Amino acid sequence: MPKIYLYDTTLRDGAQKEGISFSVADRLEIVRKLDELGIHFIEGGWPGSNPRDFEFFQRARSLKLKNAQIAVFGSTRRQGILAKDDANLTAILESGAKIATLVGKASDKQVMQVLETTLEENLAMIADSIRYLRSKGLKVFYDAEHFFDGMKSNVEYSLRCLKAAAEAGADCLVLCDTNGGALPEEVAQAVKLAKKATRVPLGIHVHNDGEVAVANSLAAVKAGAVQVQGTINGYGERCGNANLCSIIPNLKLKMGINCISDEQLARLSDISHFVSEAANLSHDVSLPFVGASAFAHKAGYHVSGISKWIDAYQHINPAKVGNKTRTVVSDLSGKSNIIYKAKERGLKLPARGQEARKLVAQIKHLESLGFQYENAEASFDMLVHRAKPGYKPPFELVDFMVVVEKRRRQSTTKNGSEMLAEAMLKVKVDGQVMHTAAEGNGPVNALDQALRKALLQSYPALECVKLIDYKVRILEESTGTESLVRVLIESSDGVEEWRTVGSSANIIEASWLALADGVEYWLLKHRTSKKSR
Amino acid sequence: MPKIYLYDTTLRDGAQKEGISFSVADRLEIVRKLDELGIHFIEGGWPGSNPRDFEFFQRARSLKLKNAQIAVFGSTRRQGILAKDDANLTAILESGAKIATLVGKASDKQVMQVLETTLEENLAMIADSIRYLRSKGLKVFYDAEHFFDGMKSNVEYSLRCLKAAAEAGADCLVLCDTNGGALPEEVAQAVKLAKKATRVPLGIHVHNDGEVAVANSLAAVKAGAVQVQGTINGYGERCGNANLCSIIPNLKLKMGINCISDEQLARLSDISHFVSEAANLSHDVSLPFVGASAFAHKAGYHVSGISKWIDAYQHINPAKVGNKTRTVVSDLSGKSNIIYKAKERGLKLPARGQEARKLVAQIKHLESLGFQYENAEASFDMLVHRAKPGYKPPFELVDFMVVVEKRRRQSTTKNGSEMLAEAMLKVKVDGQVMHTAAEGNGPVNALDQALRKALLQSYPALECVKLIDYKVRILEESTGTESLVRVLIESSDGVEEWRTVGSSANIIEASWLALADGVEYWLLKHRTSKKSR
Repeated sequence: MPKIYLYDTTLRDGAQKEGISFSVADRLEIVRKLDELGIHFIEGGWPGSNPRDFEFFQRARSLKLKNAQIAVFGSTRRQGILAKDDANLTAILESGAKIATLVGKASDKQVMQVLETTLEENLAMIADSIRYLRSKGLKVFYDAEHFFDGMKSNVEYSLRCLKAAAEAGADCLVLCDTNGGALPEEVAQAVKLAKKATRVPLGIHVHNDGEVAVANSLAAVKAGAVQVQGTINGYGERCGNANLCSIIPNLKLKMGINCISDEQLARLSDISHFVSEAANLSHDVSLPFVGASAFAHKAGYHVSGISKWIDAYQHINPAKVGNKTRTVVSDLSGKSNIIYKAKERGLKLPARGQEARKLVAQIKHLESLGFQYENAEASFDMLVHRAKPGYKPPFELVDFMVVVEKRRRQSTTKNGSEMLAEAMLKVKVDGQVMHTAAEGNGPVNALDQALRKALLQSYPALECVKLIDYKVRILEESTGTESLVRVLIESSDGVEEWRTVGSSANIIEASWLALADGVEYWLLKHRTSKKSR
Repeated sequence: MPKIYLYDTTLRDGAQKEGISFSVADRLEIVRKLDELGIHFIEGGWPGSNPRDFEFFQRARSLKLKNAQIAVFGSTRRQGILAKDDANLTAILESGAKIATLVGKASDKQVMQVLETTLEENLAMIADSIRYLRSKGLKVFYDAEHFFDGMKSNVEYSLRCLKAAAEAGADCLVLCDTNGGALPEEVAQAVKLAKKATRVPLGIHVHNDGEVAVANSLAAVKAGAVQVQGTINGYGERCGNANLCSIIPNLKLKMGINCISDEQLARLSDISHFVSEAANLSHDVSLPFVGASAFAHKAGYHVSGISKWIDAYQHINPAKVGNKTRTVVSDLSGKSNIIYKAKERGLKLPARGQEARKLVAQIKHLESLGFQYENAEASFDMLVHRAKPGYKPPFELVDFMVVVEKRRRQSTTKNGSEMLAEAMLKVKVDGQVMHTAAEGNGPVNALDQALRKALLQSYPALECVKLIDYKVRILEESTGTESLVRVLIESSDGVEEWRTVGSSANIIEASWLALADGVEYWLLKHRTSKKSR
């Protein structure tokens, strides 16, 4: 097998996904992470189409990368002008990147119906643009747009596009399934034909519109492509681009192609999470290899299997991609899952069967009220603690009141300034009632502030505990604002993170339950560890 | 090509996805929908493992299905007992279903390490169980669990399992990639070997752990499998099962296999949405073929392409799967997208370029504050309306106040009864100030009730407008409860649905903005249509 090069286009094609918009700072940080992962080429953006992309390239010059090279994206020159007069090619040169990826049509229909020019002029646009950038010292990858569709309507013309690029000096010919409709066998066949037509190395760039983008990428590699383009988490327009987080482990662990090192592969899950955070999208738990559910077991049947043989229901060792096996406490799970889960969490369950059964019944009851412990291990721990006879909570709620007011000022602006949120709260700590009040930029924030005020006097160490994530999920969606609301909160003390859950028809109450669990969990853990030292 | 049979296991294997729990009523309704779609076999559940599954089979007997037959799932008999004494096989018979799908190990390692029995006893368990159910008049499909892993460790034994099932009278041998780790070529090869070993029809059942489940299913069909198992939306444990919503259109539109009719295929998107609602999961916009983004265009480059040739950036006509082309108004889009979008919505934009530019600038500003119009077309419409000179809103907010209180009663129960939520509201309608107050089961519900009270006197027709969905999304997740919150609301008047958006650091304000937009949109549309008649 020849060496395989990984090409990431998360920052350009990935950002076409609905809802994604990366800041320049996000992009620079993503580049650093992709470099750590061992990606060979990172496409930074399209400076000819977006001024923010230009700023990225300015700042990217000072990055010190170990593995990766930055590529700049652009299209072939416009029709009827000289390459040197094309604003888009000029922007590529001004970006300072040493590699340019140039997209140009490789389908006769697209040339005639979308470019609205002649087939010959399109070939000249490809050749001129590549020759021009090569003459300025850049490496050039030619993105053969709509190549696979072109192969269906006019094989000869699509191959002529590749040859024109090759003769002009392109360093790689990237075959693109722009509309994402090709199937693996078709991809393999077209790659083989392209390989016969030219000696320049081939690349593959596919989209997931048929849900076969990963298979298409692997089929292309088998057929001879040496550069694989894709995005982290498969982000991209429509149904997304080929997902590098699945392609890389398939190449390395299934096909034996050593495209990155073992240590780099073990960072895959981390980097997948990092990019989803930068994209401000929740991380899809079902993502192959890197998702939180990828190695999670819910069926009692499977849980009993893995307790005998850890590989009974997993296709790889999750540690290889930085992920882990997890059992899921759910409605479908019986006592054995809950005991396994408690063991996993390092907790001792009441030894007698009846007490464990009581806990199972309680979990099932709370789950029917909308609580879910799958992603809220700290709340699960609290249930186990509270089930112990003689458990004494570090604080108890007496009552609270939250007020949100919108008052009209002189102006009629819609946002911010005239909103008010305040909370009053009473909690009992060591028999003493603490009564506090606080403001916040929203009702939950106000409640959070008031709770902290009340507890800091007795527990000053709590200062280091912060909320780092707050998620709201509406259950029974069809009933609108009367729905049950589930709140998931993630807290951190700078060393460790933990997650808690609350559920109620009232979002403030659901938030309170999750907030209080998060604080109680930390206080308990901290108190216990102090005593045992 | 032989006829291909579709086998749906959404209700059994699909329900293993984290967070899914179908009620019996949900299941019956899903069966009806799958029947309409033209699915040939529908697996209802595993009565031997779950009492709720038993109730489903009782009630399913009275369903009148046009296309589908119901299958019941179970495992082969336990070791060392007679088939007739096995509780699990008895439950299968009691279900009343005419088809049984029996799972039994087809991998030597699994037999030895998980079943902890001999290879011969496992063969007897398969054969006895199938023979017993056949003698009772049932059709039997044998799910050859871990078949593909088995083919790696001991080809001969895995094929012996198939032969034992075939000799005992199985009607179909379903090859399972239980751990989801196989690649398409490996699947094709193993299916070919199985086909040589037996004359009984073959089926395929794969999981998506390598993100190639759809490709594996298609490869198996090419290699000779005639039954394809999968789930709607690819729901299932870990990374999910093979996704029937992608397999079906690939079979029909790409491979020319007429497994369902054109009319049935056109219902695919609807059914995909229906199942996600029943599963209480938001519908993944990126889903191939059926997702809201599957035919959405965001890049200005692509939007300008499709305005010349509708198929320039889509692999199939979306109407074939009941979906549609959509342009996306976003941060990345320029004036041309917004003009295209307004046209799509049937709105006239201000003719002069400057007014359109002003609207673009306003949209960009609101997007930077967290608003997003991609899924909130009614709020987009409101922006266009409000940009018109002389626009007169049907009502105007003066101010509101919301109070949420938690008071301790005698008991210390955690849930419900002691929570209070009230809203007071002033709005101006036709120069008159309406001052109302209302209670709700949460703060947003209270606000919604107070607004309705205030407007119903002037607009009694508003009675028919209901909120049907309420979604909350936290932006900038890392800042916890201080984050920006985006609220998306879906409303309905029983005839039409529309979606609106609000954004603020304060969840109550964000909800208010979306609520108010939803009501104003309807009032405006209603008033306009009355006038024009």
